Amino acid sequence: MAVGNIYAVILAGGSGSRLWPLSRELHPKQLMKIEDNYTLFQSAFIRLVNCIDDKNILSITNIKLESQVKNQLKEMQEKFCRKSTYRIITEPECKNTAPAIALAIKYIEKLQQDKNIKEDAIIVAVPSDNLITDNEKYCKAVSEGIKLAQEGYIVAFGVRPDRADVGLGYIRAKNNRKIRTIAPDALKVESFIEKPDFETAQEFVDSDKYFWNSGMYAFKASVMMAELKKYERSIYDIIKDAEISSQTPTIPYQEFKEMPDISIDYAVMESTKKLAMIPLECEWKDVGSWEAVYEISELDDNGNYIMGNVVDLDSKDSLVYSTSKLITTIGLKDIAVVETEDAILVCDRNRSQDVKKIVSHLKEREDSTQYNHKTVYRPWGYYTVLNEGCGFLTKCIYVNPGAKLSIQLHHHRNEHWVVLEGKAYILKGEEFFELNKGESVDIDVEEKHSIQNPYDEPLKILEIQQGDILDENDIVRFEDIYGRV
Amino acid sequence: MAVGNIYAVILAGGSGSRLWPLSRELHPKQLMKIEDNYTLFQSAFIRLVNCIDDKNILSITNIKLESQVKNQLKEMQEKFCRKSTYRIITEPECKNTAPAIALAIKYIEKLQQDKNIKEDAIIVAVPSDNLITDNEKYCKAVSEGIKLAQEGYIVAFGVRPDRADVGLGYIRAKNNRKIRTIAPDALKVESFIEKPDFETAQEFVDSDKYFWNSGMYAFKASVMMAELKKYERSIYDIIKDAEISSQTPTIPYQEFKEMPDISIDYAVMESTKKLAMIPLECEWKDVGSWEAVYEISELDDNGNYIMGNVVDLDSKDSLVYSTSKLITTIGLKDIAVVETEDAILVCDRNRSQDVKKIVSHLKEREDSTQYNHKTVYRPWGYYTVLNEGCGFLTKCIYVNPGAKLSIQLHHHRNEHWVVLEGKAYILKGEEFFELNKGESVDIDVEEKHSIQNPYDEPLKILEIQQGDILDENDIVRFEDIYGRV
Repeated sequence: MAVGNIYAVILAGGSGSRLWPLSRELHPKQLMKIEDNYTLFQSAFIRLVNCIDDKNILSITNIKLESQVKNQLKEMQEKFCRKSTYRIITEPECKNTAPAIALAIKYIEKLQQDKNIKEDAIIVAVPSDNLITDNEKYCKAVSEGIKLAQEGYIVAFGVRPDRADVGLGYIRAKNNRKIRTIAPDALKVESFIEKPDFETAQEFVDSDKYFWNSGMYAFKASVMMAELKKYERSIYDIIKDAEISSQTPTIPYQEFKEMPDISIDYAVMESTKKLAMIPLECEWKDVGSWEAVYEISELDDNGNYIMGNVVDLDSKDSLVYSTSKLITTIGLKDIAVVETEDAILVCDRNRSQDVKKIVSHLKEREDSTQYNHKTVYRPWGYYTVLNEGCGFLTKCIYVNPGAKLSIQLHHHRNEHWVVLEGKAYILKGEEFFELNKGESVDIDVEEKHSIQNPYDEPLKILEIQQGDILDENDIVRFEDIYGRV
Repeated sequence: MAVGNIYAVILAGGSGSRLWPLSRELHPKQLMKIEDNYTLFQSAFIRLVNCIDDKNILSITNIKLESQVKNQLKEMQEKFCRKSTYRIITEPECKNTAPAIALAIKYIEKLQQDKNIKEDAIIVAVPSDNLITDNEKYCKAVSEGIKLAQEGYIVAFGVRPDRADVGLGYIRAKNNRKIRTIAPDALKVESFIEKPDFETAQEFVDSDKYFWNSGMYAFKASVMMAELKKYERSIYDIIKDAEISSQTPTIPYQEFKEMPDISIDYAVMESTKKLAMIPLECEWKDVGSWEAVYEISELDDNGNYIMGNVVDLDSKDSLVYSTSKLITTIGLKDIAVVETEDAILVCDRNRSQDVKKIVSHLKEREDSTQYNHKTVYRPWGYYTVLNEGCGFLTKCIYVNPGAKLSIQLHHHRNEHWVVLEGKAYILKGEEFFELNKGESVDIDVEEKHSIQNPYDEPLKILEIQQGDILDENDIVRFEDIYGRV
């Protein structure tokens, strides 16, 4: 097997709703730093660099997360790769893993075609939200998986459970000589089990036949396509005919939209006869819920995990996580408290799987706190909404060195800018000028304007918006270096 | 007894620390609206207007709360009184009830002297933080209390307990013919009991000899002074010699500072032999803790009291109180969650008395969240701190019609103002001008400035402060219509 035919795909489009309110649809957990200097997504990338040619490591994410993923990847590739050739496949909207994997396969087939390679690609698809230590054992498992995949198996990676976790899927496995001949540690998969209830999970842990499903898979492109054809025809039919360019790796919105919102486990793994499993012998942690965060955290003498500005009196076995405000707690037991700038969760720790229900409910009532943080990432940097009051809104705008906001105007609001840090190059009407720290400028309704940071230092501007309608949609763009016109 | 010699004193200087984070030293619970259109302090005033000549209803509070008390009183007197002659006695700092009552007596004696009245004053001292319904029964009890006080008794008002509340003091009472002859409902007091533990409190409730101490008292000025002389000599000695003007009813800081920080219960009631008790037969509720708020609130089918922007899943017997941010709760039982703009409390409901400990702790570490809300009241209106970041601070400033901020300058910060609502009359350097809605102005470091609202509409200004030191103490005042220069 030529190394050039082995690909990795990092699945980075998830919304991580069970870690709400810290994780949001527009800034999900895989893009956050959790007990490390790197984000979970970045760590997934670093792990793969050790076992797969970095030119062949792709990421797939949805369009709303694309610029964040790109920025995070850029950092990693500058540090860990010979060349900066990151490739991000873009889903036109947030869907489940089956459409994502199908799209990735199609794109990889396209790459192979362009290179005039007839040989089938082997793909290792990995989640971007696990904590894994011991890269050596990880790479060993990946390389065993690739061997099995080469033989036509769809390879799952199982983790030996050490507790009855109801937030994970389970794999029932058994010995099989034929499989073991190819990869000595591998097992035959008897069945895939969706998240079980606590009693069932406990039985699984007590038996030695069950593994946690890590969500990592290795397979031959053609094999997975054949299984999709067999078990999830609607995805197969759309992806088979899709036109994918190797320059802009995405699929038209209408086509993607028609695919079912289904996981690869449900679409293929629960039905296929081609499954084998490699045990992942390294430490593996799913950061799937606040309970999981609690489980993986270092606790104090009272069994608490306390983070941020917290004053506690006599609490036990609780998680208290503050990102901004003071939290005080008295006499709690088995409670998780998570505070962010605009939303607070207080939850029985054992019920932390139900955070998902809360997020669904917020989605139904169109509450933006399920979707967005106060901080929103843009190609040129990011902004944080500081306040929304009657008739005004304040934002802190961070413009990266070299970046430029689009030339724009608003029909319904005026804007005042005060430079807090750095120096800005401003367009107001037809006039260009510098604005230094401490200086301010007023932009009228209907007046063309732009902020640019052609300097080396980061630029921080306080914006005050005033008007009857204060909405991100009230924007007319004339010129945009990021193609958003 | 001439009606003119009967006074009421509303004790309005408390800090209500057990209702933190809603109640703060600078905006305590008695100045908040709790299940009513009026604040607890205002309700106390309205109750007294029905039984005591409104000219003789005084309030005593500490200097930091004076302008808020004045504003609340003004509203009430415009509605309920013939003349607006409110009188506020000011404590130079926040102390307990014994110094407050001593100061009030001294001031009332001064008023009597000025009017050349030899007769002894009768004083009804009432807390400002209870919920009491049935004014008729209240007034009946007050008038019985006045009769007994006239005979030389110090009269407490007791409430028949309906549960074992560990946040209240108790009075043990028994029948006594002599007392009953003067006031038919009155009882002799056997002893005063400080807040008991739960078991003791339960015994008290099961017996019929015990009453809650309402904190209301009636007494003859000379009798209370004599008892202070006997049992709390240090207060007596200071107050006896204090020079009090009837124009500015206060006492010099140094003299007040030397008084012990002690309650009237501890200083006098637990020792005096002159006690009698009138049962307060109306509904009486102490809003002393979050548990008490829970007890007095109307609960939903799950036994929850939920207020503000809250999404709950399966919680029971809990209090969830949001003033600004979204709170989501899952599976809580007997928990109190209280959210304010800058601090959050999550507490076992049965531990809500311990909130006091948290506040003490915050005081020790000089955390301003025990002291101040983000909103700070000033004689000219109020401001809310919106954000504090590195090097900048934003405030929303509300200026009452007719009000004017002092002429001032800052050594360490510049300021930008944007008018959000209304119209401002601005002084910048030597120049005066109008600033309309949507207009802005920059004030430089060391530049004299002032905001004035000579118009009929309220004025709302967004202020952005920038500088190395952003501190309320960086202010040089030149002229101030509220005497703060």
